[in-house]
Amino acid sequence: MQSKGRADGPPSIVEVARAAGVSTATAGRVLGGYGQSSAASRVKVEEAARRLGYRPNGLARSLIHGSTQTIGVIVTDIGNSFFAQAVRGIADVVRAGGFEMLLANTDSDPDAEQRAIQVMWEKRADGVIIAPEGPDSAERLRTLVDGGLPVVLLDRPLTALPQVDQVLVNNTACARSAVNHLTGLGHRRIAVVSEASGDFSRLLAHPAAGDGERPSAARLAGYLSALQRAGIRPDPDLAVHSPYDRAAAERATARLLRRDPSVTALFCTDNILTSGALAAVQRSGRACPEDISLVGFDDQDWTTLVRPQLTVVRQPHRELGAAAAEQLLARLHARRTGDGPADDEAVHLRLQAKLIRRASTAPAPAPAPAPANRT
Amino acid sequence: MQSKGRADGPPSIVEVARAAGVSTATAGRVLGGYGQSSAASRVKVEEAARRLGYRPNGLARSLIHGSTQTIGVIVTDIGNSFFAQAVRGIADVVRAGGFEMLLANTDSDPDAEQRAIQVMWEKRADGVIIAPEGPDSAERLRTLVDGGLPVVLLDRPLTALPQVDQVLVNNTACARSAVNHLTGLGHRRIAVVSEASGDFSRLLAHPAAGDGERPSAARLAGYLSALQRAGIRPDPDLAVHSPYDRAAAERATARLLRRDPSVTALFCTDNILTSGALAAVQRSGRACPEDISLVGFDDQDWTTLVRPQLTVVRQPHRELGAAAAEQLLARLHARRTGDGPADDEAVHLRLQAKLIRRASTAPAPAPAPAPANRT
Repeated sequence: MQSKGRADGPPSIVEVARAAGVSTATAGRVLGGYGQSSAASRVKVEEAARRLGYRPNGLARSLIHGSTQTIGVIVTDIGNSFFAQAVRGIADVVRAGGFEMLLANTDSDPDAEQRAIQVMWEKRADGVIIAPEGPDSAERLRTLVDGGLPVVLLDRPLTALPQVDQVLVNNTACARSAVNHLTGLGHRRIAVVSEASGDFSRLLAHPAAGDGERPSAARLAGYLSALQRAGIRPDPDLAVHSPYDRAAAERATARLLRRDPSVTALFCTDNILTSGALAAVQRSGRACPEDISLVGFDDQDWTTLVRPQLTVVRQPHRELGAAAAEQLLARLHARRTGDGPADDEAVHLRLQAKLIRRASTAPAPAPAPAPANRT
Repeated sequence: MQSKGRADGPPSIVEVARAAGVSTATAGRVLGGYGQSSAASRVKVEEAARRLGYRPNGLARSLIHGSTQTIGVIVTDIGNSFFAQAVRGIADVVRAGGFEMLLANTDSDPDAEQRAIQVMWEKRADGVIIAPEGPDSAERLRTLVDGGLPVVLLDRPLTALPQVDQVLVNNTACARSAVNHLTGLGHRRIAVVSEASGDFSRLLAHPAAGDGERPSAARLAGYLSALQRAGIRPDPDLAVHSPYDRAAAERATARLLRRDPSVTALFCTDNILTSGALAAVQRSGRACPEDISLVGFDDQDWTTLVRPQLTVVRQPHRELGAAAAEQLLARLHARRTGDGPADDEAVHLRLQAKLIRRASTAPAPAPAPAPANRT
């Protein structure tokens, strides 16, 4: 009777009731925190529960109260510092709101994402924050959205789900200002290192696509529009394609630098691509910023430890996660109290990513002679 | 009757049963996946459930089957790349094993940790992987341990809970080999940048403490033992104390370098302290490695992007998380099948962190003249 834990499994309500000398129904009401029970039974049941090591049952309580106080979070790579920081931001807000976090990592695999979405649904998460792996994620999310579960898109929009809240950064605008900075320094042969280089022609034909695109494509669109604004014809040969992998980005950038000595600047559209491209520049024998300027993406700790210190686009990582969590909690609050955003009005938040100018960008080197107004 | 979702709440088993023309008990058996039911009822119930948008109830199923297929993970800072990588390793193994992950971030706050442990208990996690915030975590974990819930300590041991599985790295040994490397290069004034510098005297008096300590203290113990082995008397003035904060580590290291020109080498016991100490060296005007050698901790992406490339102790981050998850799944498997580690035998795994020699360490500069065997 006194046995605790593993041998016989945790004590049940039946055992607690027997030990307390009350009915199972009474023990259930006391331990489940619902219905009515006398003070005397409460004392007896609680004392017996403590003595037997009864494990309070959050699941049963959730079934009764209809809320699990759990937020589902689905990201593509928790090992990437961008998502690690964003999830930290989510964790802080969620915890302060009295919620827990069920985290799934999809590794950008559609099946894993399907399964993660299913799990959030079955575990009755009160809402879900997701960085979708691609456009097909919209179809996968329909079960949640149609079922009325609040969903917030983190970092990546889904045009097929305009009714869903989203928290992104101003990807096109910040990329445009990064490339404006380079054209302003006189660079005309500016390469881009991007996971979305395959979308070069499509984006060139539809320059307005911009922020409806996934981050890499939205940033590529910003690059294209900055070039066009400066009167530079975008050259597909300068769009270096690389998956999110440092070694691959290094190889792809190295190939470009060997092949095309006219390139004087690089714009990288992601933190992993930045580290690969920088490694390629370092090995190329070309000096940064004298021979080649570099603008990185994401202001990681190390961008001020390398020499030259990197000019970067700084994304508010942690704030992005925090804003997504706040939006989700606001939805849940609104549903409970009627106070807050209406169910049929999607909230689309854009946080500002900004260019931070440091030493890795400098005026374009000769042979582009300066205008003839010097003596 | 056809209403889905939000307005009236999700459809209940009662509504599905009514629509299918079967009893509630039958609908419950079909949808809960337990007990017996005829093929005809199954078809009718499943069709009605689909039509009404019934949400399968993972919670109820968990109550019946006794497993939530959920692993609780508690870390101190998911934003730190060490934990981000370790959690990535956990996520990969947990997902492959058909489990989900409930993640809590404590920010090293005892109250937050207490709450996280309570949540894992109430949500009926099948097991918990935790990086405890400190020695007092042992008391907090007793509810889980006494209740028979499998727990695996990640990265940090708890001497008060020797019966609990743990997966750590060989902190003392790898720190010793880092400092051996420096003494081998002729350095004698070797400073350490550590969060555990307050334990200097205690560890000096009990050199055998080592791996029972938290990582920072175990690494400091390794530093002390390497010095003593080389016949160098440890000097408390060379133990730079800093919390886990880059700016604080930079300030503390800068103070040391200003105060003590005799220092020719630095050993950093953590990735954040490494970036702070490196920034301080860069600003000090002392050349690395000519004037000062530096050994960092954790082989982050950027350690080969800075110049000189950093000599570091490389921890197997992701493998550490993966090993902890594998150990936990092995426990769960053993309990279910009797096949695997016995309940009363704790498994203490030590993964190997290793010194990677690069360009930031070099022979100690004069005035320590080289042995007189040169012509």
